Amino acid sequence: MSEISADNAIKNYKKDFPLLQQKMHDRQIVYLDNGATTQKPESVIHAMCSYYGGCNANPHRGAYELSVRATDIYENARERVKKFINARHSHEIIFTKNATESLNLIAYSYGMSNIGAGDEVVIAISEHHSNLVPWQQICRQKGAVLKYIYLEEDGNLSRGDIETKITDRTKLVAVAQVSNVLGLVNPVKEIAARAHSVGAVMVVDGSQSVPHIKVDVQDMDADFFVFSGHKMLSPMGIGVLYGKEALLDAMPPFLMGGDMIDYVEEQETEFAPLPAKFEAGTQNVGGAAGLTAAIDYLEKVGFEYVESVERELIDYALPKLKAMPYIELYGCDSRQDNKTGIITFNVKDVHPHDVATILDAQGVAIRAGHHCAQPLMKYLGQNATCRASFYFYNTKEDVDRWLEALSTVRGVLGYAE
Amino acid sequence: MSEISADNAIKNYKKDFPLLQQKMHDRQIVYLDNGATTQKPESVIHAMCSYYGGCNANPHRGAYELSVRATDIYENARERVKKFINARHSHEIIFTKNATESLNLIAYSYGMSNIGAGDEVVIAISEHHSNLVPWQQICRQKGAVLKYIYLEEDGNLSRGDIETKITDRTKLVAVAQVSNVLGLVNPVKEIAARAHSVGAVMVVDGSQSVPHIKVDVQDMDADFFVFSGHKMLSPMGIGVLYGKEALLDAMPPFLMGGDMIDYVEEQETEFAPLPAKFEAGTQNVGGAAGLTAAIDYLEKVGFEYVESVERELIDYALPKLKAMPYIELYGCDSRQDNKTGIITFNVKDVHPHDVATILDAQGVAIRAGHHCAQPLMKYLGQNATCRASFYFYNTKEDVDRWLEALSTVRGVLGYAE
Repeated sequence: MSEISADNAIKNYKKDFPLLQQKMHDRQIVYLDNGATTQKPESVIHAMCSYYGGCNANPHRGAYELSVRATDIYENARERVKKFINARHSHEIIFTKNATESLNLIAYSYGMSNIGAGDEVVIAISEHHSNLVPWQQICRQKGAVLKYIYLEEDGNLSRGDIETKITDRTKLVAVAQVSNVLGLVNPVKEIAARAHSVGAVMVVDGSQSVPHIKVDVQDMDADFFVFSGHKMLSPMGIGVLYGKEALLDAMPPFLMGGDMIDYVEEQETEFAPLPAKFEAGTQNVGGAAGLTAAIDYLEKVGFEYVESVERELIDYALPKLKAMPYIELYGCDSRQDNKTGIITFNVKDVHPHDVATILDAQGVAIRAGHHCAQPLMKYLGQNATCRASFYFYNTKEDVDRWLEALSTVRGVLGYAE
Repeated sequence: MSEISADNAIKNYKKDFPLLQQKMHDRQIVYLDNGATTQKPESVIHAMCSYYGGCNANPHRGAYELSVRATDIYENARERVKKFINARHSHEIIFTKNATESLNLIAYSYGMSNIGAGDEVVIAISEHHSNLVPWQQICRQKGAVLKYIYLEEDGNLSRGDIETKITDRTKLVAVAQVSNVLGLVNPVKEIAARAHSVGAVMVVDGSQSVPHIKVDVQDMDADFFVFSGHKMLSPMGIGVLYGKEALLDAMPPFLMGGDMIDYVEEQETEFAPLPAKFEAGTQNVGGAAGLTAAIDYLEKVGFEYVESVERELIDYALPKLKAMPYIELYGCDSRQDNKTGIITFNVKDVHPHDVATILDAQGVAIRAGHHCAQPLMKYLGQNATCRASFYFYNTKEDVDRWLEALSTVRGVLGYAE
């Protein structure tokens, strides 16, 4: 099970990532915090630097060649994202600064106009705060009710709750395609079907799915789908909102300013059509150039490979973790076909931050904390957990380094075992 | 007048800017669209690449060294910005994606809570759409009245309007420190005093001032001050909102999500203190690294030098332009001590876009259009204009190339002169 067959060998992608060549505390760095942000390949860094060194200008507004080139780079990124997630139209792709802005755009623009007193919004208890606090606040402002889908024993969303919580009163359902804590792929296509059957719109947070599994927004029939570039090899400061044309068309703009208008008079404004309507001010063209290079790189690697490596690493790590009697695992109860490369755990009697600090001293970077998912933490009965999250550039040697460091934690703190 | 004295010689800063080494249409590029975005020095590009190659991690949330380094880079940028604009506290500096987002943050968070039916908001007719449309829309939603300060003959804000439009009914005054079309420095300190005397808050759009003149937010007594990094040597995707502590403290958050909370429960959230309250989701640390390098570079150049070069270039260009009988100038009526390096003009009988295209063919990049200031265009009786905007790396040779190209425009289109 833990042996990797010849035709499924883990390739050496690390060589493409300058940061992964670094040492940390005198040891080759083992980066296992990909759920928070991924490292960037040389080609992505290069794309951004090339843009600033060779084509930098303010797009859309210039009647000169340099500005035309910047516009082409920016609009080409939109076209690439459209194909990458299989949107129907490129004007259904709106660039934002991150997934959080994308979700807030939906909340402010769609939510404020379409959710009223007594209406219901349904989200999962496992949502990241970014897909939770905006809906909570909209519901408070509008007098709407926020309902939660809780979990089965194995960490998956409760099938019963999906059926019973989504009702004729539901106006919007918002669920992550993959939980950033449990790493489980949620059945968003089925949930979307259920939402549509009661006339609700379906918001899918793809922050943890887009980097790891092939996404098709038309197939899942999401009304809105969001993600961040920085979690998928891209620079920070660029995110995406996908929305169905008819919905985006009917929505009021969110941020107001340059480039999102057709005509401004002293007392009134005619807004531009999609996608400009939602892109006020100078956009992050350097970030868009990086995002395009990231998609190029990821597609060359291929999602089949990404998924197989994450699966291999999970299959390699889990039996060893389960053999450590002081390790508590969350969302790893059994081999689950919908598990991506995230392992959330605690070390008995040790605070997660101490675990992370002890691992860091051995050059292993993992995350510790509430993972911006406090309602889930409370539901799991934990204040905080540790999380190791893999990406395709991680190796079995990384897992060995991590587990080796993990085996020292209780000893460092003076426990017998 | 047009001679540059030995101790005020224009230095060769172009060598630090990779883009300015490029050719465009077989000629060395002359970039005169700095009002839209500036070029980036090697040190800024390098700072960003070094970050991604050596320190990239998600800040604030990690108990490992790499994340601590990312946090340090990000918080150091905040400290640098604080000193750069002379804020009192570093937590009065909020990072956004651009000045437009900063202004919308004020409009949504402060405006929605503090502007009501019958209240008045006063802005200048010369405002960029980013400092106009948000207030227009807030006024429409709240039943408030949007009033305009118009211009004197010479393009400066009407002193009379400043006195008479700002009254006891005024809740908020929003004015750019420098108009992006006219290049004139507005008396924001006096306007702030007038606003405060009637109990209104003062919003200053520093997008066109921060790159060009020394800014002191405490001296001008702005309540809010915004700018974009990309107009001052920085990468795109990073902007700043400064706000006085007491105001920011009392305001509700704008974007909701990760990192801006203290505690989230299923039905309620306790928000984090400043500055985190206004920084939801993963921030643009690479952009912040670039912004720090941009401030370092600008401070080495020195604002005395920046201002003197722009003044030299204006003094060199204006007499030559005035000698061209087919050139119409806006905001350049007389030598004005408050003029920054922006020259807005039209060529008689020629559409501004044609001017820009003909100049582009000769390697000279200028802007043509409404400059996101349509109410000002209408006020000036123009649909569009051309704009050449200088920065400290521009030279008299750049001005010569621009004017030489300009002298061909009417000929290219078949006019006698």
